[in-house]
Amino acid sequence: KIDGARLWSSLMDMAKIGPGVAGGNNRQTLTDADAEGRALFAKWCAAAGLSMGVDKMGSMFARREGQDPDALPVYVGSHLDTQPTGGKYDGVLGVLGGLEIIRTLDDMGVKTRRPIVVVNWTNEEGTRFAPAMMASGVFAGQHDLDWAYAREDADGKSFGTELERIGWKGEEEVGARKMHALFELHIEQGPILEAEQKDIGVVTHGQGLWWLEIRLTGKESHTGSTPMHMRVNAGLGMARITEAVHRIAMEHQPDAVGAVGQANVWPNSRNVIPGRAVFTVDIRSPDAEKLAAMRRAVETEATRIADELGLGLEIEPTGHFEPVTFDPDCVGMVRAAAERLGYSHRDIVSGAGHDACWIAGIAPTAMVMCPCKDGLSHNEAEEITQDWATKGCDVLLHAVIEAAEV
Amino acid sequence: KIDGARLWSSLMDMAKIGPGVAGGNNRQTLTDADAEGRALFAKWCAAAGLSMGVDKMGSMFARREGQDPDALPVYVGSHLDTQPTGGKYDGVLGVLGGLEIIRTLDDMGVKTRRPIVVVNWTNEEGTRFAPAMMASGVFAGQHDLDWAYAREDADGKSFGTELERIGWKGEEEVGARKMHALFELHIEQGPILEAEQKDIGVVTHGQGLWWLEIRLTGKESHTGSTPMHMRVNAGLGMARITEAVHRIAMEHQPDAVGAVGQANVWPNSRNVIPGRAVFTVDIRSPDAEKLAAMRRAVETEATRIADELGLGLEIEPTGHFEPVTFDPDCVGMVRAAAERLGYSHRDIVSGAGHDACWIAGIAPTAMVMCPCKDGLSHNEAEEITQDWATKGCDVLLHAVIEAAEV
Ligand SMILES: NC(=O)NCCC(=O)O
Ligand SMILES: NC(=O)NCCC(=O)O
Repeated sequence: KIDGARLWSSLMDMAKIGPGVAGGNNRQTLTDADAEGRALFAKWCAAAGLSMGVDKMGSMFARREGQDPDALPVYVGSHLDTQPTGGKYDGVLGVLGGLEIIRTLDDMGVKTRRPIVVVNWTNEEGTRFAPAMMASGVFAGQHDLDWAYAREDADGKSFGTELERIGWKGEEEVGARKMHALFELHIEQGPILEAEQKDIGVVTHGQGLWWLEIRLTGKESHTGSTPMHMRVNAGLGMARITEAVHRIAMEHQPDAVGAVGQANVWPNSRNVIPGRAVFTVDIRSPDAEKLAAMRRAVETEATRIADELGLGLEIEPTGHFEPVTFDPDCVGMVRAAAERLGYSHRDIVSGAGHDACWIAGIAPTAMVMCPCKDGLSHNEAEEITQDWATKGCDVLLHAVIEAAEV
Repeated sequence: KIDGARLWSSLMDMAKIGPGVAGGNNRQTLTDADAEGRALFAKWCAAAGLSMGVDKMGSMFARREGQDPDALPVYVGSHLDTQPTGGKYDGVLGVLGGLEIIRTLDDMGVKTRRPIVVVNWTNEEGTRFAPAMMASGVFAGQHDLDWAYAREDADGKSFGTELERIGWKGEEEVGARKMHALFELHIEQGPILEAEQKDIGVVTHGQGLWWLEIRLTGKESHTGSTPMHMRVNAGLGMARITEAVHRIAMEHQPDAVGAVGQANVWPNSRNVIPGRAVFTVDIRSPDAEKLAAMRRAVETEATRIADELGLGLEIEPTGHFEPVTFDPDCVGMVRAAAERLGYSHRDIVSGAGHDACWIAGIAPTAMVMCPCKDGLSHNEAEEITQDWATKGCDVLLHAVIEAAEV
């Protein structure tokens, strides 16, 4: 079993970097705070005697040698970047849980047959630079490196420039590494495990996603002296499409979800009809056909609404992944570990995207989930108990050891 | 008649200060650009031999003496501040039209019986600091000076501090001046005069307005892993209320208008359900009862929508004026001037608020309107012809001369 107190204390130390405004974190990717978080993780890895590799996307790979140096390693990890108003555990638990496994193996004096590599993937959250899970996506061959470098944040800064600025652009070719297996521990970010009082979620599937950026062009004009019938109101179009996204998700129940997360109008003045609106749609379903139908429905509705209001319409997909089925053998190792440890568990579908979802396309992959309070995530108030974290990490340890011996 | 080419050239000179991004202006109140615009106007006034007074709200009063120095002066003017993406004429035409009258009287060697004062009112637009027509509102006893000083912009800077910073906080008590009459020349900002090919709008009434700031509080959470029924989506609430405001305006036709101009959500991240939304409602009608009914309807709908989504709701009125009836004698002078000059004209209701609307409560007041292209205003593409400006200013000259002799 792992050392739960040590794991917790590392989580709390990391949470001091990039503090939020309400007890959580704002350690967005490729910011100075991200660099500071990376440096702390690197320091801990060095102290544990791990060798560090960094690839051209800035992903960090900390390796503990195995008895057989030529055997493909078992990978374990997640991400250290956060939402602008993020929690202390989303991603961080998976990375520091990986490190805790190494520390536990060291304590026990165990050397596994295969090497173990703890990974911190760059830009999992996708808030500052869309899409989410960007570095693991490049690693898995889903995106080109140059395309990723060219992604821009809201201030027009590019991913490539910012990666260089914070000093974490490595030399290693992205995706050159081969993996025997990958395991990711993550908080559920939803309410099911807590509600059913389960210690462990054995993640069998992940839902698919489309991100669409919608841009509406209307006509800026005076809110007082422009008659209603002459208005070309981009803000009203955004409102109608926001409602449509919600309705479409409701029509595809159970399991489908949909929301508008970013919403901006120009010139954003009290007495000007918005002449431009830019906003983002996030729709998801574990069912590939449903997901495709939802995307078509959103596009059809957006077109209808833009036509009825006389608005110019652009729809740009900025993120996509298909529903994922995790590797049955790896999933079995997670389930068996929970069983062996006597922890209550259930199979679960991940509502969120994870780096493991991309890696599942190129290597045997599975995920372990632990509960989080009130299903709350992407919120500074995100909370878990030390007991939940410990049990999740215990299961991770057992699954990784099993995979590292075969 | 006035010198149309000279008026036009002054308009173009002023438009060089605080240029926008698309041919218009961004000379928002109490910015450095506003200070620069004021300095240019002050220089022109000094060159015309006018004496300048500045009150504690920063409004500028440039005085040309009359034959009878003790007679109450006739005031003429408007505002030099603009929207963030504003036009070159909204407000500016009224101030520089006033100056053009002075220059014309000088050319003709005419000294009116009453003094004439050209005024530039501070913060007419109300974008940076709500409400609109702020300085004329304090002048007319509608707001307290200290309340106005405490208004804050989006960055939390106060009106009082910014007025001091740009160096235009005067010594004069606000509202101490007494007026014989006030005339304001303004572009229509709507489509009627151009559509009916009228040179001049004789403004008989102004519509009333309510500005409401609405703040919704939901719960930030993950767009993927939060089931639909657990969401408390402040952005969805904003969308529904935006649609409701539009519907309520449509239900109060003809003449009523309504729109949401500012719209902001937090944390404004693609994969976070908005936990907070802050937006502004602008509703207007020339009918006081209709306006009151619309406000009640907006509040009722907002309450219903917030309840149905489980959102916290705050509604703060940030601007209000009642429908205005302008002084029949002053209006008659405007109409007679248009008639005498042979310019086509019609009576019109102002859709926008104007400084003249506040002054109408404390002194005999009227307005002259000229057409603008496509009814477009609060848009950098706002345009008028030199002929329209000239005719409007001719009418202003004749009305002012008549008022200054009686
Ligand atoms: N786990 C997580 O929050 N990932 C971010 C990508 C997503 O929105 O699903
Ligand atoms: N004339 C004008 O645009 N005034 C600003 C106040 C308003 O929104 O009516």
